[in-house]
Amino acid sequence: MNEGHIRPLTPEECREYLALTRIGRLAFAGPDRLELLVLNAVSDGSTVLLRTESETVLATMTTAGPVPVAFETDHLDELLQSGWSVTVHGTASIASDAQRDALRGVLPHAWAPGDRDLIIAIDVETLGGRKVRARSGP
Amino acid sequence: MNEGHIRPLTPEECREYLALTRIGRLAFAGPDRLELLVLNAVSDGSTVLLRTESETVLATMTTAGPVPVAFETDHLDELLQSGWSVTVHGTASIASDAQRDALRGVLPHAWAPGDRDLIIAIDVETLGGRKVRARSGP
Repeated sequence: MNEGHIRPLTPEECREYLALTRIGRLAFAGPDRLELLVLNAVSDGSTVLLRTESETVLATMTTAGPVPVAFETDHLDELLQSGWSVTVHGTASIASDAQRDALRGVLPHAWAPGDRDLIIAIDVETLGGRKVRARSGP
Repeated sequence: MNEGHIRPLTPEECREYLALTRIGRLAFAGPDRLELLVLNAVSDGSTVLLRTESETVLATMTTAGPVPVAFETDHLDELLQSGWSVTVHGTASIASDAQRDALRGVLPHAWAPGDRDLIIAIDVETLGGRKVRARSGP
């Protein structure tokens, strides 16, 4: 019988997993309530780039100034009940040309049609994560 | 060529998808920063039950009183670039006996070993979601 395990990821592991992200969830305090959005994303481990439409709350807020955010990405296998997750805390702003250039070629691709032409960059300040494997039978 | 689509889910569809959840992400304003956690969860469409350890920030805050939260769950297929997501806003509290009883038999199962014996209930106040299918080639 495998007892299962849960262990924190090292910062280096967090950056490696973060660099695999293609989609994640962004949380921030909006004007009326806590916002929690699913967004396309890419990362090099120290910056996360997100694509959003130009008329969203996120676009409006980041255009006005840096926004404290949390971003989470994971790969979870419901069948095996195992996987990893990484959560980043940082500040979201309109991406600079340098930030866009650094991730050119892997800029987040929008799954859905529409005018998603604003690229937001999160400067990663802290990150943490964990790896989990469920108990399994004999 | 399929142009892809993105469409909002009706409240009824949101509740149906929400009832499929086994894992989701919970956001709330912690004492020091925005918290964004991955947690096992179940729902009947109007309440979401989460399992947490008794010594977490979430446990401490909900023991002290109701906590405004956002909860997100999804099923996203990275290969097909399609799927759905549902986000709930509501208030998290320690689950009442009635809330635990209503979802007995499907109480969230913790993937990892450890002492996760506190059940938190989110009373769903608003919910929204969307379904997305990416552009596909001819």
